[in-house]
Amino acid sequence: MNGNRFGRLFQVTTYGESHGEAMGVTISGCPAGLELTEDDVQRDLDRRKPGQSMITTSRGEPDEVTINSGVQDGYTTGTPIGMVIQNKDARSGKYEPFITAPRPSHGDFTYSAKFGTRNWGGGGRSSARETVNWVAGGAIAKKILAEHGVELKAHVNQIGDVQADDVTFEDIKEHSEENEVRCADPEVAEEMLELIDEYQKEGDSIGGSIYFEARGVPRGLGAPRFDSVEARLGQAMMAVPASTAFEFGLGREAREWAGHDRNDEWEFASESPRDSDASGKDGEPRQVPKPSSNRHGGLQGGITTGEPIYGEVTLHAPTSIPKTQTTVDWETGEEKEVQVVGRHDPVLPPRGVPVVEAMLALTLVDFMLLGGRINPDRMDDKLGEYDTDYHPTRPET
Amino acid sequence: MNGNRFGRLFQVTTYGESHGEAMGVTISGCPAGLELTEDDVQRDLDRRKPGQSMITTSRGEPDEVTINSGVQDGYTTGTPIGMVIQNKDARSGKYEPFITAPRPSHGDFTYSAKFGTRNWGGGGRSSARETVNWVAGGAIAKKILAEHGVELKAHVNQIGDVQADDVTFEDIKEHSEENEVRCADPEVAEEMLELIDEYQKEGDSIGGSIYFEARGVPRGLGAPRFDSVEARLGQAMMAVPASTAFEFGLGREAREWAGHDRNDEWEFASESPRDSDASGKDGEPRQVPKPSSNRHGGLQGGITTGEPIYGEVTLHAPTSIPKTQTTVDWETGEEKEVQVVGRHDPVLPPRGVPVVEAMLALTLVDFMLLGGRINPDRMDDKLGEYDTDYHPTRPET
Amino acid sequence: MNGNRFGRLFQVTTYGESHGEAMGVTISGCPAGLELTEDDVQRDLDRRKPGQSMITTSRGEPDEVTINSGVQDGYTTGTPIGMVIQNKDARSGKYEPFITAPRPSHGDFTYSAKFGTRNWGGGGRSSARETVNWVAGGAIAKKILAEHGVELKAHVNQIGDVQADDVTFEDIKEHSEENEVRCADPEVAEEMLELIDEYQKEGDSIGGSIYFEARGVPRGLGAPRFDSVEARLGQAMMAVPASTAFEFGLGREAREWAGHDRNDEWEFASESPRDSDASGKDGEPRQVPKPSSNRHGGLQGGITTGEPIYGEVTLHAPTSIPKTQTTVDWETGEEKEVQVVGRHDPVLPPRGVPVVEAMLALTLVDFMLLGGRINPDRMDDKLGEYDTDYHPTRPET
Amino acid sequence: MNGNRFGRLFQVTTYGESHGEAMGVTISGCPAGLELTEDDVQRDLDRRKPGQSMITTSRGEPDEVTINSGVQDGYTTGTPIGMVIQNKDARSGKYEPFITAPRPSHGDFTYSAKFGTRNWGGGGRSSARETVNWVAGGAIAKKILAEHGVELKAHVNQIGDVQADDVTFEDIKEHSEENEVRCADPEVAEEMLELIDEYQKEGDSIGGSIYFEARGVPRGLGAPRFDSVEARLGQAMMAVPASTAFEFGLGREAREWAGHDRNDEWEFASESPRDSDASGKDGEPRQVPKPSSNRHGGLQGGITTGEPIYGEVTLHAPTSIPKTQTTVDWETGEEKEVQVVGRHDPVLPPRGVPVVEAMLALTLVDFMLLGGRINPDRMDDKLGEYDTDYHPTRPET
Repeated sequence: MNGNRFGRLFQVTTYGESHGEAMGVTISGCPAGLELTEDDVQRDLDRRKPGQSMITTSRGEPDEVTINSGVQDGYTTGTPIGMVIQNKDARSGKYEPFITAPRPSHGDFTYSAKFGTRNWGGGGRSSARETVNWVAGGAIAKKILAEHGVELKAHVNQIGDVQADDVTFEDIKEHSEENEVRCADPEVAEEMLELIDEYQKEGDSIGGSIYFEARGVPRGLGAPRFDSVEARLGQAMMAVPASTAFEFGLGREAREWAGHDRNDEWEFASESPRDSDASGKDGEPRQVPKPSSNRHGGLQGGITTGEPIYGEVTLHAPTSIPKTQTTVDWETGEEKEVQVVGRHDPVLPPRGVPVVEAMLALTLVDFMLLGGRINPDRMDDKLGEYDTDYHPTRPET
Repeated sequence: MNGNRFGRLFQVTTYGESHGEAMGVTISGCPAGLELTEDDVQRDLDRRKPGQSMITTSRGEPDEVTINSGVQDGYTTGTPIGMVIQNKDARSGKYEPFITAPRPSHGDFTYSAKFGTRNWGGGGRSSARETVNWVAGGAIAKKILAEHGVELKAHVNQIGDVQADDVTFEDIKEHSEENEVRCADPEVAEEMLELIDEYQKEGDSIGGSIYFEARGVPRGLGAPRFDSVEARLGQAMMAVPASTAFEFGLGREAREWAGHDRNDEWEFASESPRDSDASGKDGEPRQVPKPSSNRHGGLQGGITTGEPIYGEVTLHAPTSIPKTQTTVDWETGEEKEVQVVGRHDPVLPPRGVPVVEAMLALTLVDFMLLGGRINPDRMDDKLGEYDTDYHPTRPET
Repeated sequence: MNGNRFGRLFQVTTYGESHGEAMGVTISGCPAGLELTEDDVQRDLDRRKPGQSMITTSRGEPDEVTINSGVQDGYTTGTPIGMVIQNKDARSGKYEPFITAPRPSHGDFTYSAKFGTRNWGGGGRSSARETVNWVAGGAIAKKILAEHGVELKAHVNQIGDVQADDVTFEDIKEHSEENEVRCADPEVAEEMLELIDEYQKEGDSIGGSIYFEARGVPRGLGAPRFDSVEARLGQAMMAVPASTAFEFGLGREAREWAGHDRNDEWEFASESPRDSDASGKDGEPRQVPKPSSNRHGGLQGGITTGEPIYGEVTLHAPTSIPKTQTTVDWETGEEKEVQVVGRHDPVLPPRGVPVVEAMLALTLVDFMLLGGRINPDRMDDKLGEYDTDYHPTRPET
Repeated sequence: MNGNRFGRLFQVTTYGESHGEAMGVTISGCPAGLELTEDDVQRDLDRRKPGQSMITTSRGEPDEVTINSGVQDGYTTGTPIGMVIQNKDARSGKYEPFITAPRPSHGDFTYSAKFGTRNWGGGGRSSARETVNWVAGGAIAKKILAEHGVELKAHVNQIGDVQADDVTFEDIKEHSEENEVRCADPEVAEEMLELIDEYQKEGDSIGGSIYFEARGVPRGLGAPRFDSVEARLGQAMMAVPASTAFEFGLGREAREWAGHDRNDEWEFASESPRDSDASGKDGEPRQVPKPSSNRHGGLQGGITTGEPIYGEVTLHAPTSIPKTQTTVDWETGEEKEVQVVGRHDPVLPPRGVPVVEAMLALTLVDFMLLGGRINPDRMDDKLGEYDTDYHPTRPET
């Protein structure tokens, strides 16, 4: 089974099942000279890990990452970065009832139909546990992007019918991590928590969505058609477990907009030549075309305009619920009632925020490399210049 | 610039600009022994071509395809199929005003920002004209799928705020090609046409959406995660020009559904072993698990359940409109008013229907090959058996 | 830095430096239902590991593999197989003199020139230690191939000017593992050992070569041109550290052969229809064309004829030698004499044999999958048939 | 059938059979702003085309290229370049005897075994005619490389047992195109022609080899292991029709060299900082490590040292010979004698020279792009700077 790789120049390869030995991710294509420690990765893993609050599964996973290669004396060396996260709390006994009786809308049946077998502990390979690998890889991508002027952030903008659409990028950056539901509007967050609580009490779950935004992405990045930025983002976001919709810019709503209303007119804006332009012309700002609005979501013709890239991902309600459901057992040939008890999230977006950020970061860093905006060999932009007073450091004496 | 390839085993590679010499597409990975003529491809090209009605551009393109390789005596040979479609009506003069003054929300600026140049006739490479290549490739994919029991169809389910959601797959197959707007509900189609007419009269355009469905896709197809069926469909559909949203199953709406309501319970259904299962067991139907409903859209854990795969693609309003808009000229440094007069569609979904079908077919045939459901070498399922009484036919004497 | 992936459907991704924490390899694309334990992999790792004899480095590496995912109850599950091999004996102190003074013909300079840094312990990422990952992946490929009737083996056919060209495939299978140099001719092996001993005593090293052969590869496998079997083998074998030549069939010698002498004429041979042909015709042998000789090395037009595939790989002498050599220090700006003392192989082919076998196996299993000869989902050939009495086994009670 | 793509960022996709309608090649990934006309491509096509002399087939193919896209006003636009070369002289009648009776050592049998059919005119897809596509793509790669300081050239260094190893790169550039056999040593060329004439008179053919060399490739280019420069060159050169051996540096001979003799020691050399280093330090030459010899062939650890990259490709004798040979007819079940009369080259290397150069250029331009040495968007190194007085040129008035 393929499908375990993402990225063209910034390549992520993953393995692991929810109740196997360990999860693992290999990053190939990270430039040398990036300052990187396990802590940098751990920070994002901690945002995704279980047991953070009442609305996340209580599975006891510390999710501690080990970096096996690609880093020396605190800096990346340009060689692949191998990371491993052990699965500590892999009690799979309670999944026995489902070995031959698939849970409704879970991957149990499809995996068995494909492979004639499956790792039946938890969700196996189809488990959202896999996203621990993505978050680990995304943490590195974010660091590189930050050093190239790109920042990105996501937050939960809807749970059930409770929406929070009136927030700014600054709000998201400042407030989304302040509450358990990861919504940038604290009052709406309260409402969301109440709603979740209701569903949880009924042994049920509820859907929701995540809004994401990236700023500082240089104009002229991307490619037409099959590999347009939106096409690659579409793949990235639809890969997120439980994702049923991807939108950017006006998204689904665009179907009801007239062209004249949706089109973003052009005006001039002052711009200082950026270092990265290597333009050679010093200092003086020049007048450059800039859209006077951003209904296009930062992308035109599959290529970036330099405006913020934003969109939404819808995650359906978790399928593992305590409420009674009907299924069939293909071994006994009988119908049966099942309850998926235990440690399951009643809603996915709160823990999905770092996952969506990771996929956004992995997609963008790949485009930055493909567009020549990041030196593929090293962070300091000197190609083919072996260095005398840089890394590797001699051992201290 | 990459981004001109699609597919992993059924590989499509394209070239061409809207006002260049010709469009071209190469298909690599089509099995030998498929009956194929230029007419098979032409049929779908004719559904996409300009000038079909009042609501499509009147650009005079016959869009006649020439097959340059890969077919002999009416059958594919297993070697790559090269196809060319000449651009006949490439009058680019009227685009001169936009060379240095980008049309609002068009790809003019982003292409120039990326390349320092662009083919300024029409939309250049960012033009929807490129989709002629996709439709040509998709026509071949559809033929292969049809011989393996998969059928698929799309129709226009919304223009502006006029919706047609109450149609069956049979309706779509039978009625969607009966009206200019390609909507399977004839009454709604009338309303849509009226709405389009209104916008067109104002020199404006309007958005809309396309519903797609595929039936007969075998269960157990796909892969987890990065290459899940929905992830690849997401890429495919977001690659469609003007696409701003991709949804499957309940789509965006899933955010408001409770788990218990959305989950599809399992029941037993009778199934005759299919030939393609190579199960060896003759005849007798057996009881197999089957979802009692299909809110999951045919996909669980990234893998097919065997239920219909369905979803929607939103296309924003065409950006080329006669109505006056403001832009800037980066050569003169001045603001200016522009009107994009000429031959432009006032709405995209009607001609987008064959395009969405093509991308759906290309995605599914690739998964069929990856899942071992189609012999990669030849349609007749005999591996490594040179053949004595089959193709190539001797020349008639 | 990319370059850490191999294979199109049987995908190998690796990481690790000679003196880092651990080596790691992820296999994506192994079908479910293959019996597999760590012992299966360990057997080949033991053939590659250091410290086997006087002519291999004495570095103390047990090279014990851990399988982190993809296997359950002794069978593969179809999901990616993550394996880790810890680096135990990573004493890097003795490499300090070379941090800024590159060893002659080593990767020290090129790595530093590319990345501005490098993992300077041992060979870093350029070390042949990386091949531990290949051998681990190759062990799995070999098991799959063996279950599909393909067997393969390599041996050392030349060290310096001592050759062993007069051996059969049976000799190679039976005798090549009986001596330290892994040459199938025991007398020649003696001569080789004496020659190696001479060079070793002088603080020098010597080159050599490996002959490989695969039998049972079905006819009709491969593809024309860029991905012909020989092209992919060429990439695979030139990736082997220290490889400077790849040949198949008559190899380099073919340049001196006339067409009439080299061409292999066709004759008829009896053949029983193979199960895998799915020909449906029972039993009776038929007459099929077969080359009367095999100077073509099993490949014509890039595609297999069904005859044995054979060839040779040349490995240059190890560059790490105790004998004094001149280099320069880019920090001090001075010339200096260096001696690379310590634990280095005086000759590479003996430990290279399992590496060449691994690359051969990885290449062939990939072609078997691409050619539809191996079910990509499961070893038992039932597509889309979830199974009731198969894996996963219920836990014993 | 896949196998029709080459390159990771500079992507070549081809189609065509020897006796089909046309050959076609699509280049994706060529930067904008490269001056390019059909003449630039034609020059190399003319070096490869049939009918140049007595020792090449007299098939009447003008091999005229048409560029269908990607070029405007004489400059590339960054979009894919589609090229078509019509097959004019496709008389296939004389191949009828071989439809079911495979020519010895030709691809007839393997193609039929794979596909159950084949384009039986000439060599079909396995024909060396395919290389017309490679040469067309290579011509563009060479132009880009030349603008980045890389030059490359090949010549015929052996036919049968007649060798020409004592020539310099200057000789090759100046003299290899002066004689029909494309050997840089005019006296050896004479001997080669005599030898070829002998074989031709006997209705036989003979093998030979091509030496290639590239200069000016910057140091620090490449990647370890699976995608090392030598691994990718190995694939590229083994893809050349009739290729049976690939060597670089000392090649096969390296097996007989001691480490101390083969290793290249380091010395200092003066170097002016190159513009492309973007080092910022002006003017003053500095002392950099440089190998004092080049037995390593320009590559260490899979990465370039900056020294010339050189190697050899062996091409076996053409398999199509007038001399009588035995084959079998799988339709009649009978043995038969065949003579492959008509227009066939008696030796391949002379027309193979532009083919080997093309594959070398395609491989190197890809590494230059991957290593960040070529701006992927445009030749003039300005990223994200739309341009006011550059292309596209306004139409002249």
